[in-house]
Amino acid sequence: MGISGSDGSGLTIGEASEREALRRIFPRLPESRATLVGPGDDAAVLAAPDGRFVVTTDMMVHGPDFRLAWSGPEDLGWKAAVTNLSDVAAMGAVPTALVVAIAAPPETEVAWLESVADGFRLACEALQPGCGVVGGDLSVSATLTFAVTAFGDLEGRSPVLRSGARPGDVVAVSGPLGAAAAGLGLLFAEAVDEAGEPDADRFAAVVAEHPELVGAQLRPRPPIADGPLAAEAGATAMLDLSDGLALDARRVAEASGVAIDLDTSTLGPDVRTALSGGEDHGLLAAFPPGTALPGGFRRVGEVRAGDGVLLIDGRPFTDRGGWDPYQDWSGRAG
Amino acid sequence: MGISGSDGSGLTIGEASEREALRRIFPRLPESRATLVGPGDDAAVLAAPDGRFVVTTDMMVHGPDFRLAWSGPEDLGWKAAVTNLSDVAAMGAVPTALVVAIAAPPETEVAWLESVADGFRLACEALQPGCGVVGGDLSVSATLTFAVTAFGDLEGRSPVLRSGARPGDVVAVSGPLGAAAAGLGLLFAEAVDEAGEPDADRFAAVVAEHPELVGAQLRPRPPIADGPLAAEAGATAMLDLSDGLALDARRVAEASGVAIDLDTSTLGPDVRTALSGGEDHGLLAAFPPGTALPGGFRRVGEVRAGDGVLLIDGRPFTDRGGWDPYQDWSGRAG
Repeated sequence: MGISGSDGSGLTIGEASEREALRRIFPRLPESRATLVGPGDDAAVLAAPDGRFVVTTDMMVHGPDFRLAWSGPEDLGWKAAVTNLSDVAAMGAVPTALVVAIAAPPETEVAWLESVADGFRLACEALQPGCGVVGGDLSVSATLTFAVTAFGDLEGRSPVLRSGARPGDVVAVSGPLGAAAAGLGLLFAEAVDEAGEPDADRFAAVVAEHPELVGAQLRPRPPIADGPLAAEAGATAMLDLSDGLALDARRVAEASGVAIDLDTSTLGPDVRTALSGGEDHGLLAAFPPGTALPGGFRRVGEVRAGDGVLLIDGRPFTDRGGWDPYQDWSGRAG
Repeated sequence: MGISGSDGSGLTIGEASEREALRRIFPRLPESRATLVGPGDDAAVLAAPDGRFVVTTDMMVHGPDFRLAWSGPEDLGWKAAVTNLSDVAAMGAVPTALVVAIAAPPETEVAWLESVADGFRLACEALQPGCGVVGGDLSVSATLTFAVTAFGDLEGRSPVLRSGARPGDVVAVSGPLGAAAAGLGLLFAEAVDEAGEPDADRFAAVVAEHPELVGAQLRPRPPIADGPLAAEAGATAMLDLSDGLALDARRVAEASGVAIDLDTSTLGPDVRTALSGGEDHGLLAAFPPGTALPGGFRRVGEVRAGDGVLLIDGRPFTDRGGWDPYQDWSGRAG
């Protein structure tokens, strides 16, 4: 476990030159169809066929964002990729490429970083074939950190902002609600030792019993393709569900100057987790009334006249009802 | 000093919500003329008028890359901006925008991060007006880390790669050679206490005596505008001088399949530092014979037939002769 490779005896990034490490890592990364000039120069050059590009950036930090007793290197590469891809998709764009900066302790084995690269490749192959890594940076740090920037192609469409929802629109989601949070809850409850520290052996038992929920947390499979589909279907607003349905729905309500009314009869048996659970990275969108909902979208509520308020079954909902990475950070690092 | 604001009593990012912190930081960041959709949604949308864009990413990590006893928040924002701008310029592109991800300890004051934002703004205003920050991410981490991704516009030109140098070309540089390394050497020699740890009081004395050299290290002013000028003048190869003239010239020689012969009579009195000193972030370029060298470029040698070798005054140079962030990291963090 940790940041050593399978046999614990391999070359570390403290021993390898940056060039040697990158020479081993880059061939495992996915290639981007948008590449005009790829890795190896001062910068990459990418195609932006319609004269615009979408860009988003996100960090994953050891401690607040993941535990090494629970996430292997492939999981980390996978999650770092898809959390960014979903932000691109939420604009209605097709993800085309990523750049990846990794800072890792000097004792990190190059073999471990190769597995991180495998995670990026597997995620792109599974969720957005043709999207790939076009550049990166590798640094030493006391804290393992991933910083990913992702790009997308709007294919001539207007970007779908969070500010366009209009009264009468249908509110719909694609992807799971609360599964990632349920998985994290299980891990904190059952994949820890007596002192509450993340524990690899107990983790294995939890995975065996609840593979779907743990997978939703460690290797989410957000509905990336549904972002462009929603844009084509005329979505008036869209957002990546990163902080929980309630908090993210309120963001759309505030940005659009409307009320959003969520219908709990559509949210499954665990309404509380569906409303508050973060990190699902599905999509929340508003569609004009009568729209045939595309892809995996399903109705969860309606847009009403109002001024930035969230309603649940017609009643104002004033709980914060979501996840804030600062407020909830325990500071523990496993 | 450190990561507290001027009075040491302000709101920290561990106390503020991410939204509140970003609301204070974003207004101080420079705006980009390329912005179509700015900060505040899942992603930004940028103009790429010629159907392509240049992208590069780079991390700065507390410890290996900077010491808080020596670099204030404005310095850090400045340096994080310009090291990326110079990579874009080295492709012959005009830098248009940045995205900035920052991970900082929870006790970091929001006021300190506002000063980091000021550093980004001052650098863009000074070196590339119209370039600005279009998005970002703010995380908590035990290790202060900056991850910047920069974008550029080739304005219809071909990118200038490191692989295009041809025998007979003139080798030229723009910007200082070795000044940043000389500044760092001064800091390690004189701005430390008896135990060799970075010391703020002694730092102030060094700055007072050698403002230019310390400034070259902490607030470099690379010749960003000379990148597009070189491309327009027909540069056949170009590289950002980040790891020292000798190592970077060898990279051009290897990529281009040529020999590069550096003329030490052009390198000033301290040839050794000019050859080996990293972090200047000037430009190394090759131009066809007879080219009127643009901007601040000056001749430092010539391209000859050869196979990826570096010559100094006509003799093969086999020293590594450069700076590798892994090999030289002391692990000390001040």
